[in-house]
Amino acid sequence: MSRIAVIGAGPSGLAQLHAFEEARRSGADVPEIVCFEKQSDWGGLWNYTWRTGLDEHGDPVHGSMYRYLWSNGPKECLEFSDYTFDEHFGGPIPSFPPREVLYDYITGRAKKSNVRQYIQFDTAVRRISFDAARDAFQVTVESYGDRSARTEEFDRVIIGTGHFSIPNMPEYPGFDTFPGRVLHSHDFRDATEFAGKDLLILGSSYSAEDIALQTLKYGARSITISYRNQPMGFGWPEGISEVAALDRVEGRTAHFTGGRSRDVDAIVLCTGYRHHFPFVDEELRLSTGNMLYPAKLYKGVVWTPNPKLMYLAMQDQYYTFTMFDAQAFYVRDVVLGRIPLPPADGMEADIAHWRDRQDALHGPMDDIDFQTDYLRDLMAATDYPSFDLELARQHFATWEHHKEESITGYRDRAFASPCTGTVAPLHHTPWWTELDDSLATFLRSGRPSPH
Amino acid sequence: MSRIAVIGAGPSGLAQLHAFEEARRSGADVPEIVCFEKQSDWGGLWNYTWRTGLDEHGDPVHGSMYRYLWSNGPKECLEFSDYTFDEHFGGPIPSFPPREVLYDYITGRAKKSNVRQYIQFDTAVRRISFDAARDAFQVTVESYGDRSARTEEFDRVIIGTGHFSIPNMPEYPGFDTFPGRVLHSHDFRDATEFAGKDLLILGSSYSAEDIALQTLKYGARSITISYRNQPMGFGWPEGISEVAALDRVEGRTAHFTGGRSRDVDAIVLCTGYRHHFPFVDEELRLSTGNMLYPAKLYKGVVWTPNPKLMYLAMQDQYYTFTMFDAQAFYVRDVVLGRIPLPPADGMEADIAHWRDRQDALHGPMDDIDFQTDYLRDLMAATDYPSFDLELARQHFATWEHHKEESITGYRDRAFASPCTGTVAPLHHTPWWTELDDSLATFLRSGRPSPH
Repeated sequence: MSRIAVIGAGPSGLAQLHAFEEARRSGADVPEIVCFEKQSDWGGLWNYTWRTGLDEHGDPVHGSMYRYLWSNGPKECLEFSDYTFDEHFGGPIPSFPPREVLYDYITGRAKKSNVRQYIQFDTAVRRISFDAARDAFQVTVESYGDRSARTEEFDRVIIGTGHFSIPNMPEYPGFDTFPGRVLHSHDFRDATEFAGKDLLILGSSYSAEDIALQTLKYGARSITISYRNQPMGFGWPEGISEVAALDRVEGRTAHFTGGRSRDVDAIVLCTGYRHHFPFVDEELRLSTGNMLYPAKLYKGVVWTPNPKLMYLAMQDQYYTFTMFDAQAFYVRDVVLGRIPLPPADGMEADIAHWRDRQDALHGPMDDIDFQTDYLRDLMAATDYPSFDLELARQHFATWEHHKEESITGYRDRAFASPCTGTVAPLHHTPWWTELDDSLATFLRSGRPSPH
Repeated sequence: MSRIAVIGAGPSGLAQLHAFEEARRSGADVPEIVCFEKQSDWGGLWNYTWRTGLDEHGDPVHGSMYRYLWSNGPKECLEFSDYTFDEHFGGPIPSFPPREVLYDYITGRAKKSNVRQYIQFDTAVRRISFDAARDAFQVTVESYGDRSARTEEFDRVIIGTGHFSIPNMPEYPGFDTFPGRVLHSHDFRDATEFAGKDLLILGSSYSAEDIALQTLKYGARSITISYRNQPMGFGWPEGISEVAALDRVEGRTAHFTGGRSRDVDAIVLCTGYRHHFPFVDEELRLSTGNMLYPAKLYKGVVWTPNPKLMYLAMQDQYYTFTMFDAQAFYVRDVVLGRIPLPPADGMEADIAHWRDRQDALHGPMDDIDFQTDYLRDLMAATDYPSFDLELARQHFATWEHHKEESITGYRDRAFASPCTGTVAPLHHTPWWTELDDSLATFLRSGRPSPH
């Protein structure tokens, strides 16, 4: 029987295990699946850790998740069509849940589909190579328990380790003498640390936007966001402002292009992440920036130089869990032989078609349409239960408008499920004044009781 | 010609390059030396970086050094006997220099001995294995420049990567919900971040002692040090206190064994480091805690299971640079065939002798004598220029007494050089009130001018 390695038990790895298990339940002859996960529990980034830098085993901490994180997009755009929010929570919940609620939801499906049996926890993958003579992958793993290493052979490898773990860390003159903390958003954990402080944030994407709002919400005195190309331009609440690119830091004074300056107490680099797979041999290693359609991935997943290797979730993401499902079902059907792969030139032609279109995209609305079409293409090829993808697409557009209307208020909106039609209730407390991000408080209906 | 790999260009690696270069200058036939250093410059820990967690290449940051760090022992106890402080600075300087001064000193000798030519910077060692058939080591390195990997063959490998880089990180109940920063001293960089804060420090060794003093000096409101076994028991200045072991954290309240509790804003784990060599194959990997005489290292350096492998500086350290020199000269002479190694049972008997004595040590004064004897033993075997080791030993004892007398004042003492006899001048400003740790300010003689 053939053997398949799945690397990582986060949202994409779990989606892959689930996809195989669904086929098995329907009677398909499924290969042996082994999932390696370096953390001691599942959930990937959603498995919050207080640790930063290196973990208890001396390896890089996987998690980039911070406390008080709430979904920044409507949950209706990431709903599993085969395990709805209604099913998991037993009734409707608001559209923008905090981390703990989404963690509960993802792992809820994994429990239901009983895939924990396939996962080897506390097991770090050290090397993946391909042995052409044996036509098989050699996967070397280390068990943290006794720190023993071993190498196993697999017919296919599916990499689901994500790409929001390894920080991209630019340096600016003066960082080495700045009297205060300089950190990447990967190491950001608790906004209350910055209460009363003047903060400098570098970046202009989701992390910059969210950490600026979070820190202000939890008491920072001021947040200055420095952008390299374009400001985000939202209607920021008082206390947040955007300035041009950072030029240098002198003491605690940040100097920006154009001559403005600002005294700050801490600097947060929201400068993104790198696709980084040091455990994969060079000739198998995906090398790309963060984009909607990386090169060399047929249908966004099949590694064309060696189609027995697959990568999940390597795209820039509007769609998340839903896209991982579509990819996982597609990958599964390739593995099961249900979907024949075209020859190399056919795969490259298909990739070129998508990448040509990618080159012509102008802004988020185009991006959303592009990724919607990508999902539609994948979903048409498998039996992943369909949902109202057009409604999800519209939700993204509406959500973008809501953010333009109010960056502190967009999470107080409610959407309809593209899976069940259920309309979400409004949260009992406006997001901007809700300091408690626990599942218990979130699920409590009605207005909060005074405390 | 045989080839020798030296791993790391910090204090011990540089000592090794220097030792070989000294032999070459005296006409010895020295093998080809290649030193791999993952940082872009030399100095190891002493090469300060503002970065924490992962570096710009996605690898763990090597440095554990923080700003405003001053030597915590007299410089006279770490003086190179073949490159004295008098020689480097052109005259006497005080006994407790800040980091920049020591960095200048270490790298000053490396410049003088012209060893930079042997170092490949920005090059990370990924794997060291031994090929018995070829009787040689295979060393796989990655160049950060083009991220290319290659494997080279060496006859001997000398590991000088240190053991103060990979944090030992215990977890306590409540860390995951503590509203503030939790960090290891490895990631501590700038004390001013904690000005006005109530700090909890876990630990009872050098890091705990020094970070407690540093943070108070730079404005922390209070520092509570929690010890597991024994308090350090120094005469702490107001604002620092020692309490029993941490039991748990609830919200921002730390609860200690015995029932006391304290509200704190941040937690610093000064819980030590791990000997961690993931790049070394299991059968070649030193596995030890922090102690004066680890097992399997003959004369503290030769890896007995395979004596072609050597480890530098793996001991718990009173002596530092001086000990690295003694080890490096010893290792060099083993490599050059000047020192014959006894058979395996002879090496083990010698190790057993030292380790038996180690078992009988009681406290720091015994430890100092033990490590002094170890140095004496090594130095007798090579031509490393002798110095007054007995004076250095006495200095350590005196220094311990000074610390008992005044933990904030011991750095204001002056010692005589065991190499030159030069008596250090007193620093122009008491350490406790000196906030400027720059080389320029330190070297300025006399009382500071008002500014």
